[in-house]
Amino acid sequence: MSDVSTVFVTGGAGYIGSHCIVELLNAGYEVIVVDNFVNSVNDPDGGSVALKRVETITGKKITFYECDLLDKNALGNIFAKHKIDCVIHFAAIKSVGESMEYPLLYYKNNLIGMLNLLEIMEQFDIYQLVFSSSCTVYGEPTYLPITEQHSVGHNITNVYGKTKYFIEEMLQDITHANSKWNIIALRYFNPLGAHSSGLIGEDPIKPFANIMPLISQVAMKRLPVLTIFGGDYNTDDGTGIRDYIHVMDLASGHVAALNLLKRSHQNYKVYNLGTGQGVSVLQLVQTFEKVTGTVVPYKIVERREGDISTRCVPISGGGKR
Amino acid sequence: MSDVSTVFVTGGAGYIGSHCIVELLNAGYEVIVVDNFVNSVNDPDGGSVALKRVETITGKKITFYECDLLDKNALGNIFAKHKIDCVIHFAAIKSVGESMEYPLLYYKNNLIGMLNLLEIMEQFDIYQLVFSSSCTVYGEPTYLPITEQHSVGHNITNVYGKTKYFIEEMLQDITHANSKWNIIALRYFNPLGAHSSGLIGEDPIKPFANIMPLISQVAMKRLPVLTIFGGDYNTDDGTGIRDYIHVMDLASGHVAALNLLKRSHQNYKVYNLGTGQGVSVLQLVQTFEKVTGTVVPYKIVERREGDISTRCVPISGGGKR
Repeated sequence: MSDVSTVFVTGGAGYIGSHCIVELLNAGYEVIVVDNFVNSVNDPDGGSVALKRVETITGKKITFYECDLLDKNALGNIFAKHKIDCVIHFAAIKSVGESMEYPLLYYKNNLIGMLNLLEIMEQFDIYQLVFSSSCTVYGEPTYLPITEQHSVGHNITNVYGKTKYFIEEMLQDITHANSKWNIIALRYFNPLGAHSSGLIGEDPIKPFANIMPLISQVAMKRLPVLTIFGGDYNTDDGTGIRDYIHVMDLASGHVAALNLLKRSHQNYKVYNLGTGQGVSVLQLVQTFEKVTGTVVPYKIVERREGDISTRCVPISGGGKR
Repeated sequence: MSDVSTVFVTGGAGYIGSHCIVELLNAGYEVIVVDNFVNSVNDPDGGSVALKRVETITGKKITFYECDLLDKNALGNIFAKHKIDCVIHFAAIKSVGESMEYPLLYYKNNLIGMLNLLEIMEQFDIYQLVFSSSCTVYGEPTYLPITEQHSVGHNITNVYGKTKYFIEEMLQDITHANSKWNIIALRYFNPLGAHSSGLIGEDPIKPFANIMPLISQVAMKRLPVLTIFGGDYNTDDGTGIRDYIHVMDLASGHVAALNLLKRSHQNYKVYNLGTGQGVSVLQLVQTFEKVTGTVVPYKIVERREGDISTRCVPISGGGKR
C-alpha cells in the first residue's frame, strides 16, 4: 500500500539496532540512524563503531546522526533533511535492575523519547512505526506459552517493563484517534548472539548487562565469576527460565514487520518475537561451556528485584490485540 | 515531622486549584502558584483573575508565575527563587472526551509535566507531594462503593484516566526507589460547586466542560440546551451516575493531606475524595432547577466515548495501597 523505502532508526548503534540494520540494508532499505551513545560506542573519528562495521559487513552506506530523542529540536532538524517513510524505534534504556533503582530516569528517557518522536513524526506526516516492546508487558504470566492475546499491564514487576507497557497503550490510543497511524509493536523475549561475521555483537557500556555478555566476559576471565540471580525458582534446576532468541532472527522479524506495514495498513498490531523454547540460566551456561570448551565459574545469589521466574512464547505467529 | 509551610501549587489558577488555595491560605500555608492559563483566565494587568479574587476572599497575598510545566528551565528558575516545602500538583488537562481525540496531547502534557516537576523537586531536595489523581484510575468498577483497595489500571476507558494511572505508578515506583519521597495521591470523584462568596467558580476556557458549568450556562440561556450523553445506562433513570463532591470539601481534603504529610512520613498513600452518594445526571439537573427556580432544557444523545456508567465512593476514609 504505502511505499516504505527509507527507514529512520532510533538507537541504531546499539546491540539490537545494529544487527537489525544489517538485515534492513540487505533487504534493500535505506537507513538513517540516530543514537545518543548512552549504551554504545562512538568512534573518535565520528559516528558509531558498530555502524561502521555494519557498513563493512553489508557494503552499504548508513546516514548517522548523534542525537538524543529528548532533544526534540535536534530530532526535528534531522527529519527536515530527509524524506523518511518509516520509523523503527529501538532507543530506550533497558535494564530491569537499573530501572528499579532509577525509575524517574527510565520514565523520563523512555516515555519522553517516544512522545517526542511521535510528535515529530506527526509533524512530518510520517505514520509508519515499528516499536521495540518487550515480553515484560505481560507481567507474571497466567498461562504458557504466552500468546499475544495474554493480558498485559497486570503486575508488571519492573519499571522498564512499565515504560514499554505505557508506550504500547499510547500507540494503541493514537491509532484509535487517528487511523493514519500504521504501527507494529514487537514484543521481544530475550535476544542474544551476534552476527556471524563476529564484527558486531552485544557490547554494552553500562554495568547492568544481559546474561550473554556476562557469560562471555567470565569465559574470557575479564570477570572472575558469573552471578546468577535466584536458584530457588520453580524450575527443574532452580534457575530462571527464559525464551532466548537469536538477534539475527529478531532482525528478520523487524524486516518482516516493515514489509507488512508496506504491504497493508495494520492499524495497530503486536507480535511476539521468541522461539517458543524455554532455557534455564544454568542450561545456557552449560551449553556455552560445551560449545566453546571454556569454563564459566558461577555463584547463585538471591533473586533480583523485578525478575520473574518463567517466560515463554508461542511457536505460532502473531495475533491482533 | 517535617516542616511544611510554603506550598508550590501547579495549575493553581484553575477551578480546583483556586478553591484549594483559599483553604490553604486560611490554614496558614504560604502559596506559590504557577499556571499556564490553558484553561483559566489571565488578567490583562498580569496574573490570574481567579487568584486575585482569592486574595480578596482571604485577605492574603499569593505569589504567582505564568509558567508551563513543559518548560523545565522556567520551572527550575522559580524553584531557585523560593524556599519550597511541599508541592500540590493540580496542573493537567482533564477532559475525557478531548483526551480520546487528542491522546498525544494528553500524554505529552500530563506525563511530561509531571516528570519535569518530579525532576526539579529532586534537584531542589523537595520530596513532599500531593497529586491530583482521579477515580478514573479504577476503570469500570468491579464493586461499589469503590474503596482505595479496588484494583486500578484495568480497562480504563479513556486516555485522561490513563495519564492519571501512569503517574500514580510512577509515584509509587519513585517512592519505592527512594524513601525520601512522601506522597499522597488524591483520587477525585466529580467536583462541582463554588466558593460561597461567588467570586470564584468553575469557568473553563475549553469547550470540553464538566456538567455543572454547562447546566449553569443553559439556565442563563447562554446555551440553548443541555446535552446529556447516554440515556440507556443501567441506572434508575437511564442517565449516568456520578459521585459529585463539593469543591470546598475537595479543598479541605487537600489541606488534610498536606497536614498529614507534615505530621508523618507517608511514603506513598492514596485517598478517595468523594461523598459516597451516587447522583444521576437527571437528578442533578432536576435538583438544580428546584434550587434555582430555573428551567434547564436537555436532550439525551448517544453515550460519549470514554465514559462509564457508575461511579461511587466509600463513605469510609482512606486506605493504603
